[in-house]
Amino acid sequence: MSTQEPAGKQANSGRTNNRSTRNTSIDVAKLAGVSQATVSRAFNPSSKMSPETRRKVLDAAEALKYAPDAIARSLISNSTNIVAVIMQNPMNPFYAKALTKLSIQLRSFGKQILYFYLDDPDNLHEIINQVLQYRVDGVIITSVSLTSNLADICFDFGVPVVLFNRHTNSPQVQAVCCDNIQAGRDCADYFFMKGYRKFAFIGGYDKVSTSHDRKTGFLARLKERGIQNAKVYHSEFAYEAGQEAFRHLIKDMGTPPEAIFCASDLICAGVMDSARFEYHYRIPEDIAMIGFDDIQLASYASYNMTSFVQPMDEMIAKICELIMAPEKNNIQPNLTLFPCTLITRSTA
Amino acid sequence: MSTQEPAGKQANSGRTNNRSTRNTSIDVAKLAGVSQATVSRAFNPSSKMSPETRRKVLDAAEALKYAPDAIARSLISNSTNIVAVIMQNPMNPFYAKALTKLSIQLRSFGKQILYFYLDDPDNLHEIINQVLQYRVDGVIITSVSLTSNLADICFDFGVPVVLFNRHTNSPQVQAVCCDNIQAGRDCADYFFMKGYRKFAFIGGYDKVSTSHDRKTGFLARLKERGIQNAKVYHSEFAYEAGQEAFRHLIKDMGTPPEAIFCASDLICAGVMDSARFEYHYRIPEDIAMIGFDDIQLASYASYNMTSFVQPMDEMIAKICELIMAPEKNNIQPNLTLFPCTLITRSTA
Repeated sequence: MSTQEPAGKQANSGRTNNRSTRNTSIDVAKLAGVSQATVSRAFNPSSKMSPETRRKVLDAAEALKYAPDAIARSLISNSTNIVAVIMQNPMNPFYAKALTKLSIQLRSFGKQILYFYLDDPDNLHEIINQVLQYRVDGVIITSVSLTSNLADICFDFGVPVVLFNRHTNSPQVQAVCCDNIQAGRDCADYFFMKGYRKFAFIGGYDKVSTSHDRKTGFLARLKERGIQNAKVYHSEFAYEAGQEAFRHLIKDMGTPPEAIFCASDLICAGVMDSARFEYHYRIPEDIAMIGFDDIQLASYASYNMTSFVQPMDEMIAKICELIMAPEKNNIQPNLTLFPCTLITRSTA
Repeated sequence: MSTQEPAGKQANSGRTNNRSTRNTSIDVAKLAGVSQATVSRAFNPSSKMSPETRRKVLDAAEALKYAPDAIARSLISNSTNIVAVIMQNPMNPFYAKALTKLSIQLRSFGKQILYFYLDDPDNLHEIINQVLQYRVDGVIITSVSLTSNLADICFDFGVPVVLFNRHTNSPQVQAVCCDNIQAGRDCADYFFMKGYRKFAFIGGYDKVSTSHDRKTGFLARLKERGIQNAKVYHSEFAYEAGQEAFRHLIKDMGTPPEAIFCASDLICAGVMDSARFEYHYRIPEDIAMIGFDDIQLASYASYNMTSFVQPMDEMIAKICELIMAPEKNNIQPNLTLFPCTLITRSTA
């Protein structure tokens, strides 16, 4: 097992450290009175062992200033236990929550997250190139679509790719989404049940699959019910975009619709604030509204927003399953859909 | 340079890939008509070169399905170019923003983030153990204090540690904070200037240095101005905690204070909503309020909150400087403070 510490014998120039005199797992095993294999397993959170034994090993390791070298080990196992997560919208609370839950679940499998913020979709190519240098076990991409060219590159490197909250036509990429089309249909039905007959949809950019699918389901169901004149606005998934869209809507329509389906809670908060504070409409008496994602803000008393919630725990579990057992991916459909649930509060 | 691809010759069992027949940087250099050193530099975002040359190399690399092996390279350079980030409150928009900005700045130095969510402060020890297995260039810890024992462990491994938004007494740990004591004093002065004379402070847990320092500065300045009876409440940095604290305050005081300093915007939003919707007070006419961090919500029309903003860009730049040149840390003070600025909106 001495291959676990090849660089431990090198001086780490420019820093004060004692790597050059570092102890090995053999020393730790001796001190703890366990086998060397037990020492290895003690450092793997997904290995089952009694808390007492693990504590004994970790205490011995600490006394001897020993830590296994995951990097050297990865050269043997060809796995770094690193999963790359590429996020475009980390400031959206929905994705901050997803990152938190991904971290918890991946850690339970002994996997760590190499995190990449995608400031510009045009940089995805460059980031994928960087990701592939780290011998990652998989790539999870949130809120970004992937061209089939980039999907091919990952496939060629044997790295499974899972999209979260976006889907694509590439057969080599797995996607985990909620059933946005059905949620759009459910929204139309709910508004109808409440007696509304004049509608608008305010979404993110239409090329974004989540927004597109929510709109598609909403308009299709309205059409089935005989409504074909719903107004549609597209912009960013952001508060300010919601305000702006509502101003456009009032400018275009003169009077507002009876009910608005917003493709995200942030958009809905902007629409609500513009409607209430700039135009003095009452919600839901003058205009009813429904948002999407049930972020914390949706439950704040200032908004108390009716919103769709995605089953995030189940979705994250599915993503981890796809990353952990990529060989199964070929025999499954490449888009896994989860149902959304409407949380009714005071806005509709 | 063949040492860069030692595992490229191994089959990656259980996955479809072509690592076993993978091309090397020599092949890429030939195809692109550049030197091998240029190929290396093209994959390092911090290396200066013309966009045309970089594009030529990356296109050639892609055609040959080549990526440098950062893991194998790290065995030679003893640097993985990985910086660990350990976060306790990733759902707080302030930290989601910090992670985003850290990612941008570290990437400009060619560094990637290994992300750890700390679900429980008691797990910090275990996470530090995991971090050290990855040969990281540094550890950034946000919203968590570090015991000197854990600081010693990192020091022994030669890994620089920087705390963001917390400080500690350990001489081996650098901390980057805003001047929370001064902000507390500024808040007292601002409230006084506005004519308020009856105060409360609603903070996070008092053992958290940010909350403690904001309170300390606020109360000290009030005392200098002859006010010694300000009410103090402590709880979590969360919306619901703010609501709860306001209910306690009304139960204790009967009538509310004239002005409340909240240690975070999320607390302040909870206080505002409880005051307005549960007790029907007007803000700021009945009670003035000031929050902290200027998160996006503070500028939403429903809150329009007066709040302190931290100079995040400068703070993140300082953190990166401390991580990139850790040998300088010993000759600097181990706490770097940045001034906060009050953003005045409608709540005070």
